[in-house]
Amino acid sequence: MGTLYLVPTPLDFGCDSQGPLDEVLPQATIVRAAALQHWVCENAKSARAFLKRIGEVSPLCASIQEQQLQELPREVHKKGDTGFDARSLLAPALQGLDMGLLSEAGMPAIADPGASVVRAAHTLGIEVQPLIGPVSLMLALAASGLNGQNFAFVGYVPSEPALRAQRIKALEALALKTGQTQIFIETPYRNEALLRTLLEVLQAGTRLAASMGLTLEKCRHYSGTPADWKRERWALNNQTPAVFAIGP
Amino acid sequence: MGTLYLVPTPLDFGCDSQGPLDEVLPQATIVRAAALQHWVCENAKSARAFLKRIGEVSPLCASIQEQQLQELPREVHKKGDTGFDARSLLAPALQGLDMGLLSEAGMPAIADPGASVVRAAHTLGIEVQPLIGPVSLMLALAASGLNGQNFAFVGYVPSEPALRAQRIKALEALALKTGQTQIFIETPYRNEALLRTLLEVLQAGTRLAASMGLTLEKCRHYSGTPADWKRERWALNNQTPAVFAIGP
Repeated sequence: MGTLYLVPTPLDFGCDSQGPLDEVLPQATIVRAAALQHWVCENAKSARAFLKRIGEVSPLCASIQEQQLQELPREVHKKGDTGFDARSLLAPALQGLDMGLLSEAGMPAIADPGASVVRAAHTLGIEVQPLIGPVSLMLALAASGLNGQNFAFVGYVPSEPALRAQRIKALEALALKTGQTQIFIETPYRNEALLRTLLEVLQAGTRLAASMGLTLEKCRHYSGTPADWKRERWALNNQTPAVFAIGP
Repeated sequence: MGTLYLVPTPLDFGCDSQGPLDEVLPQATIVRAAALQHWVCENAKSARAFLKRIGEVSPLCASIQEQQLQELPREVHKKGDTGFDARSLLAPALQGLDMGLLSEAGMPAIADPGASVVRAAHTLGIEVQPLIGPVSLMLALAASGLNGQNFAFVGYVPSEPALRAQRIKALEALALKTGQTQIFIETPYRNEALLRTLLEVLQAGTRLAASMGLTLEKCRHYSGTPADWKRERWALNNQTPAVFAIGP
C-alpha cells in the first residue's frame, strides 16, 4: 500500500510576489512532494501551480501534464468534510502508489478541507505522514503573545454585524473565564469591518492580536488592548488574509 | 530597535538519532537563526546544542562561546507565562540587536513557555517575526483525520486516575456537542496509562487519534474508535512523546 503524505503549501498563493519555496518549506518536504505523482487537492489549477514551483527547485518524478490530480468535490468546500466518504479518491494508494494531499495554502486539513481524506486513509489502513511547512494559525498564535498552552481555533465569525458582535462577546467571555485563547478568521474583504466590531465590543482589559500577510514581505503582527490599537493606529486592509486572536 | 524572531527547533531533541536539520527547517529559518547572537531560551544547554546543529549547516555569526543566552526563570517553566514580566530579557533588542526566542522542541510559545517574552516585545514596540518549522500539535491534528476547522489544545490531562477519567469524559462531551476536536498531551512515561483510561472511558462512536514520535523515523499515527484500537492492537510506549486528540 502507498502512503498518504500531507503536503503543506506556501501561504503566498495568489500574491503578486511569490518568494522562493525553500524560504518556507524544508528540503525534505520539497523532495517528497517532487517524488509524488498522485494527488488529492482542493483545486487542480493551483495544485499544478504549486507543482511547477516545486519543479523549479527539485526535479519532478513526472511532468505537470502527467500528474494525476483529483479534486475534492464542491460539497466538501462548502459544507466541510463531515460525512463525506473520500475512500474512492485513495484508489492509487490501494494499488501501492504514494499519494499527496494538498490544500490551497498551508497545512492540508487544518482550517481547510482534507480531514475526510485522512480519515478515509485510516479506515483503509493506508499510512498517513504529515510533512513540515507553514501553518498560518500557529505563526499567528506564537506571534500574538497570548496563551499558547490552551487555545482554540473556531473558524469564521459571522458576517452579519449583530451576529458578529454577539459571537465576539461569547468568544471573549470564554477566553476570560478559562484563559483559553480564541483564534478566528474572516474573508479578507471583511478585515476592516471585523476589526471595527472588535474594537467596539471588546472589554478594556482584553488583548486582541492580528497577524496580516503571514510569511509575506509586508507581514505585520499587532497585539494589544483596544486602547493600544487606537493609540497606535494599527490598521488592517481588505486585501490581505489575516488571523485574529483574543485572550486575557 | 531589533526584531524578536521566534525560532522553531526540531522535535527530535534528546533522541538517539537526530536527523539533518534541513529535513525539518526551511533554509530561511536556518539562515536567520545562524545570524542571531542574542537569545531567550528555556534551557541554555539545549539551546547551545541546537545552535551547534545550526552551525553545521550554516555559518554562525558568533561562536557558541560568544552566543548570549538568557534562560526563562524556573517559575515560568513551572507555573506558565501568565503574570511574568519579561521586559528585562529584551534589553539587547532595545539596543538595536536582533534576538531569538527558543523553546525545547518545536515552535516557541506554543504548548511551551515563551508567550510572556512575545507579549513584552509588543509592549516595548519591538517587532515580532515567527519563523517556519515543525509544530507537533498541528502535525498530529492534520494526521488525525479529525475536524481541523474547529479544534482546541488544552494542555496536559491530570495524572491522578479518577481526575484523568473525569477530564477525558468532559473533553469528550464537549467534542461531541460542538464538533470541536480536543487535543491534549501527557508526559511520555504516562502514555500507556493514559491510553488505557481513554479506551475504558470513551464512547463507542468517538474517534481517538494519537501521534507518537513526530518527525522521527519511528513516527506512527493512529486514528479510530476504541474498537478499532483494540482490534488493531495499536500500542504506545512510555518513552516517546505523543499527542492525543478526540472528536466525533
